[in-house]
Amino acid sequence: MYSFNELAELFEASIQKLDLPKEPKLLYQPIEYTLANAGKRLRPVMCLMAANLFSDKVEDALEAAKAIEVFHNFTLLHDDLMDQAPIRRGEATVYKKWNDNIAILSGDAMLIKAYQVLEGIDTKDFKQISNVFSKFALEVCEGQQHDMDFEDRMDVSLEEYINMIRLKTSVLFAGAMQIGAILYGATEKEQEALYSIGLNFGLGFQLQDDYLDSFGDVKTFGKKIGGDIIANKKTFLLIKALEEANSEQLAELNFCISSDFENEQEKIDRVKNIYSNIGVDQEIKSEIAAYFNKALDSINNLEVNSEKKKTLVSLIDKLMDRNK
Amino acid sequence: MYSFNELAELFEASIQKLDLPKEPKLLYQPIEYTLANAGKRLRPVMCLMAANLFSDKVEDALEAAKAIEVFHNFTLLHDDLMDQAPIRRGEATVYKKWNDNIAILSGDAMLIKAYQVLEGIDTKDFKQISNVFSKFALEVCEGQQHDMDFEDRMDVSLEEYINMIRLKTSVLFAGAMQIGAILYGATEKEQEALYSIGLNFGLGFQLQDDYLDSFGDVKTFGKKIGGDIIANKKTFLLIKALEEANSEQLAELNFCISSDFENEQEKIDRVKNIYSNIGVDQEIKSEIAAYFNKALDSINNLEVNSEKKKTLVSLIDKLMDRNK
Repeated sequence: MYSFNELAELFEASIQKLDLPKEPKLLYQPIEYTLANAGKRLRPVMCLMAANLFSDKVEDALEAAKAIEVFHNFTLLHDDLMDQAPIRRGEATVYKKWNDNIAILSGDAMLIKAYQVLEGIDTKDFKQISNVFSKFALEVCEGQQHDMDFEDRMDVSLEEYINMIRLKTSVLFAGAMQIGAILYGATEKEQEALYSIGLNFGLGFQLQDDYLDSFGDVKTFGKKIGGDIIANKKTFLLIKALEEANSEQLAELNFCISSDFENEQEKIDRVKNIYSNIGVDQEIKSEIAAYFNKALDSINNLEVNSEKKKTLVSLIDKLMDRNK
Repeated sequence: MYSFNELAELFEASIQKLDLPKEPKLLYQPIEYTLANAGKRLRPVMCLMAANLFSDKVEDALEAAKAIEVFHNFTLLHDDLMDQAPIRRGEATVYKKWNDNIAILSGDAMLIKAYQVLEGIDTKDFKQISNVFSKFALEVCEGQQHDMDFEDRMDVSLEEYINMIRLKTSVLFAGAMQIGAILYGATEKEQEALYSIGLNFGLGFQLQDDYLDSFGDVKTFGKKIGGDIIANKKTFLLIKALEEANSEQLAELNFCISSDFENEQEKIDRVKNIYSNIGVDQEIKSEIAAYFNKALDSINNLEVNSEKKKTLVSLIDKLMDRNK
C-alpha cells in the first residue's frame, strides 16, 4: 500500500512526462506553465488511492489521474480569467502573464488534452470512464455558472449553495475516485461507494476552504484572509449568518455588505465578529466534520481489507485538522 | 443514396433533439442559441456523406455528425470572442448578446457536450473515433493560435499559411469524413482516402472563402466584402502579392497596408487593383481548383460503386462555382 506522499511522487513523475508539443509556443507554454505550478495534486492522488484500495499496483491509474489533473487545471485557468484573479499559488495567472485570448485558447486546448490523455488508458471500460469524465466535467461548468449567478443575488439559500459546491468542486473528487475504482474492476456498488466518499470529502473540503478564507491564519493558509468577506461572497458563513442573525446583527451585517469601506480590514473584522457572535463559525465546523465523517463511514463500510484503507483514512483525518 | 439536401434535413431533425438541460439558463441558452443559428451544416453532412459511401443507411452516423457540428460551433463561439466579431450569420455573437464570461463558460460546456454526444455512438470503434476527434480538435486550436500569431507578423510564408488553414479548417472536414467511414467498417486505406478527400476539400473551401472575402459579391456572399483587406489579414492573396509584386506594386501595397484610410472602400479598391494587376486573383482560383480536383481524383479512385459517389462529387462541383 502506498502512502499519500508516495502516490503524490509517483504522480509528479508521471505528469512531467506529458510530452506536450512545442509549437505553437503560445498555445502550449501556458499549459506547461499551469501544470508546473503544482497544487496539492489532491484530485489525481484521490484517483490513485481509490485504485490502491483494489490493487497493490496503481500504475494503470496514472493516465486517468493525469487526465483529471489536466482537466482540473484547465478549470482553474479559465476560472481565473472569468474571476479576474491575477495570482494563483503565488504566480501570475495565464491571462495576466500572457493575455485573455491566450488564456481562452490554451484553456480549450488543455480541456481537449485532458480527453487525449484519458484516451491513453488501456482498458475495456474506456467508454464508461469517458462517460464519468464528461459527466463531471459538464457539472463543474454548471457549478461555475451557478457561482457566477450567485454574485448578483442576495437570496441564495443554503441548499442552493451546497448544490453549487457539489457541482463546482465535489463531483470531480467523486468522479476521480469512481474512475480509479472502475479501472481495477470494482463492482457497481463499490463504484457508488467510492463516488459517495469523494462527494462527501469534496463538500467537507470546500466548506473548510470557506472557513479558512475567513478564519484561517494567513501564515499557514497561504493566501489573504477575508477575500470572501470583501467580495460579499455567498458562502455557508454569510448565508447562515443572514438566516440566523437577530435584528441588530442583521442591520450590522447589511451595513457591512452594502458599505464601501476605506479600510478593508475593518469590514473583515466587523463581519467576522458578527459570524462569531451568531456562532456560524462553529456551525460550519460541525458541518465540515459531518461531511468528513460521512466519507469515513462509507470507507469503513467498504468490503476491502482495513489495512488498505489506512492512507485514505489518514488523509481525511489530516485534512479535518488542516489550516492550509 | 441520399442527396445533400436529404442528409442536411436528416441532420437538422437530429440536432433539434440534442435535449440540453434547462438550468443553469446562462450556461445552456447560449449553446442552444449558437446551434439554432444554422450555417451550411457542411461538416456534419460530410460525415454523413462518407457514411453513405459505404451504406445505404446513415442513421448510425448521426450522433457523430452532431458531435462534429457541436464542436465546430464551439470553436466559432470562442473564436468570435477572441476576434471580437460582434455578428455571425446575421445574429449577435454570444459574447455580444451576453458577455465575455458567459461566452467562455458556455463554450467550455459546449466542447464537453461534443464529447458527450460522441459517447452516445454505439460502436466497438469508439476509442478510435475519440482519438480522431481529439486529434483534430487540438489541431484546430493550433490553427487558431497560428492565425492569431500571424496578426503581428508581416513575413508569413505561403507554406505557413497553408499549414495554418489545414489545421484551423481542413482537418475538421478530414476527421468528419474519416469518422463517417470508421463507423461503417471502412478499411484503413479507405479511411486514409476519406481523410485526404476531406483535407483537400477543406483547403479548397478555405481558399475560396479568402477569394470571396475580397472578390465576392456582397449580395450573394452575405457578408461585407474586403474585411481581410481592411485587417491586413495574411491570406493567400496578400502573401502571394507581396512575393510577386514589382517594386512599384510593392510600394503601393506597403502604402495601403501601413496607412490609415479615412475611406475604407478606397483601401479595398486599391488593394484589389494591385491583386488583379499582379494576377493573384487568378492564381488563387487555380489553387482552389487544384485542391478540389485532388479531392475529386481521390473520390474517383475509391473502390465503391460510382453511383454512390454522386452526392459527394456534385457537392464539390457546386462548391467550385460557389459565390456565397
